[in-house]
Amino acid sequence: MAVKFAKRVEKLGPSEIDDILKVIENPNIISFAGGLPAPELFPVEEMKNVAVKVLEESGRQALQYSATDGFLPLREKIATRMNTKFGLKATAKEVLIVSGSQQALDFSGKIFINPGDVVLCESPSYFGAMQAFDIYGPKFVEVPTDNEGMIPEELEKILATTKNVSLIYAIPDFQNPTGITWTMERRKKIMEIVTHYEIPVIEDNPYGELRFEGETLPSLKALDTKDLVIFLGSFSKIFCPGFRIGWIIADETILAKYKYVKQAADLQTSTIAQREVNKFMELYDLDAHVEKIKAVYRKRRDLALQTMKKEFPEEVTFTYPTGGLFTWVEMPNHVKSKDVFYKGIENNVAIVPGDPFFPNGGKKNMFRMNYSNTTEEKIVEGISTLAKVLKELIQNK
Amino acid sequence: MAVKFAKRVEKLGPSEIDDILKVIENPNIISFAGGLPAPELFPVEEMKNVAVKVLEESGRQALQYSATDGFLPLREKIATRMNTKFGLKATAKEVLIVSGSQQALDFSGKIFINPGDVVLCESPSYFGAMQAFDIYGPKFVEVPTDNEGMIPEELEKILATTKNVSLIYAIPDFQNPTGITWTMERRKKIMEIVTHYEIPVIEDNPYGELRFEGETLPSLKALDTKDLVIFLGSFSKIFCPGFRIGWIIADETILAKYKYVKQAADLQTSTIAQREVNKFMELYDLDAHVEKIKAVYRKRRDLALQTMKKEFPEEVTFTYPTGGLFTWVEMPNHVKSKDVFYKGIENNVAIVPGDPFFPNGGKKNMFRMNYSNTTEEKIVEGISTLAKVLKELIQNK
Repeated sequence: MAVKFAKRVEKLGPSEIDDILKVIENPNIISFAGGLPAPELFPVEEMKNVAVKVLEESGRQALQYSATDGFLPLREKIATRMNTKFGLKATAKEVLIVSGSQQALDFSGKIFINPGDVVLCESPSYFGAMQAFDIYGPKFVEVPTDNEGMIPEELEKILATTKNVSLIYAIPDFQNPTGITWTMERRKKIMEIVTHYEIPVIEDNPYGELRFEGETLPSLKALDTKDLVIFLGSFSKIFCPGFRIGWIIADETILAKYKYVKQAADLQTSTIAQREVNKFMELYDLDAHVEKIKAVYRKRRDLALQTMKKEFPEEVTFTYPTGGLFTWVEMPNHVKSKDVFYKGIENNVAIVPGDPFFPNGGKKNMFRMNYSNTTEEKIVEGISTLAKVLKELIQNK
Repeated sequence: MAVKFAKRVEKLGPSEIDDILKVIENPNIISFAGGLPAPELFPVEEMKNVAVKVLEESGRQALQYSATDGFLPLREKIATRMNTKFGLKATAKEVLIVSGSQQALDFSGKIFINPGDVVLCESPSYFGAMQAFDIYGPKFVEVPTDNEGMIPEELEKILATTKNVSLIYAIPDFQNPTGITWTMERRKKIMEIVTHYEIPVIEDNPYGELRFEGETLPSLKALDTKDLVIFLGSFSKIFCPGFRIGWIIADETILAKYKYVKQAADLQTSTIAQREVNKFMELYDLDAHVEKIKAVYRKRRDLALQTMKKEFPEEVTFTYPTGGLFTWVEMPNHVKSKDVFYKGIENNVAIVPGDPFFPNGGKKNMFRMNYSNTTEEKIVEGISTLAKVLKELIQNK
């Protein structure tokens, strides 16, 4: 190879996750691996109507270039929605449309991380965020995290002794991969500490609306008195991921940087996709659609957890998510999640090994399970198979 | 402001171009400023049919996540099309779909530029590319360029004496901003030099299909014997920009880096947008559509250039583009293009000052004119007004 790459990408190559995703493309496999919404719930008929209406009413504008900020009526709807759902006080001026919230993660790395800076995250945390940040050369420090969320005393200790912390990355609602939701007390304490140290917080909230029980808690952004929180949202989990529409809500000064970076990165998000999502929200009831999704996912979660409780060996524990898409499974120390993955694949059932969710390497005996994209029949069948695999691996000391 | 930004974005803010674009949003202004295709030529009726068909035939897939590489049938069509039009020998494996070719520019900066590296470009060159690369901290060196393209002897001289050249950025067909197309001899000589020095070349080709007269010349990629050229294309100028679909064609080893970076940056380009563009190409004749566009743009170019010849003061010269969207105007040294811009706006006509197209600052007496997005009547009216502005400014020594 004649060509020389920049240092920041020299070592990058296909990720572990790519290899995993390739294996599970086989349609015979019952997959608890991905984070995909259930496609049978997509409003296909409604979108036919929406697509025709958008082209009839504003075809020329919908197919043309448009503003980097995004389509104003959509930004207004998002501001109102996030204010209502998560206690924000945003106006459209504080909303930037991006091509899925993954893009917001890349931009956050670009805007905040100098090579060698420290990024704090939950332990474990979303590997796609690590992948996005990693290009900008940070060191990751994992803040100890338990079933109530990130542990404030541990965060305080790290901030008191660590230089050049450029950002804190957090998923307080139905976390990926653990399914854990931070308690109110934790949210308040973490925000007190953040406010003291004045560190920007990326609050990633793709699952927050998918709560199956209990009351929605205020977002970190709602508790933010110093404009430190950058709130990320997405239509991928509450509507359809195929449009690639997400958003960033932040203080206008911070958002100006994101806007500049967005323009340089891809000019703007698809005009027609934005207008279609906006039109859907005008013509139909997105809240009703979310309720429909939640009812299905809640049923699948209940069935998955019941079956796991019944079938999994008692040494195996797992989280009880009150919403979102995932549960997180912990096995005895000697059982490796990669073995579960490969043994599972041999038996046509897939999970995601937990290793990539620890940016500094870490626990090998955990894995993530998704329940949103598998029918009830397959959930029972897949978990029963997985239970046999687990029993076998636990016995093979 | 409490928050600390990374060094790479510290100085970034709204660009000069933003200010300009804001001013020309006024609908009373005759704008030769943007690089927008004519929206009256968009196939709105056809796209209604396409949108319905895609949702009827594959609604669930179209609204779901999809592969980072892009939709295979579309990648195949693009490979075939580029092979036919520009002499490439690509297969779908060498094609990556991106969110407009601007995204390919950002990725190219990310993949090739270390802070302090040198990027070579034509002088002047597309400011959006400079904006994308700039974030990664390069020094720009402008290679002297004349009406036949980049000057090979000058490129050779620079490469022989410059360390850490990380890439060469070039727009050989109907360049933005000048409208100039490189001659065959220049293409061959430049590629000989590039092959000797083994420097990656970003060949940006959004306008190549919009040739009004003469024969299409082979792309640099067609003359590339060492897999050094990364070819960028887009549907924005030959179809509709609102979908934000572009592509990168490169050697598989290089493309693997782009693919990794794409995944980290936004996972994938809109599934439904890719399927719609693909379906349009299946159901309709994109070549016929391009012919339709070309006929209109050719007429507009003819009228614009004739009117400029007739009305502009004789001290003012301009390029004769054989395709694409732009002509480049040079005025006597004492006339500043920014004055033309502001005086023009006062008289409801807009151009883009040439200054931002010189990355190291440079000639102040040039400006870019677009003729694709203005009706014939307005072309004559706008150019007549502009001629008066020019006369006035030339006389005010």
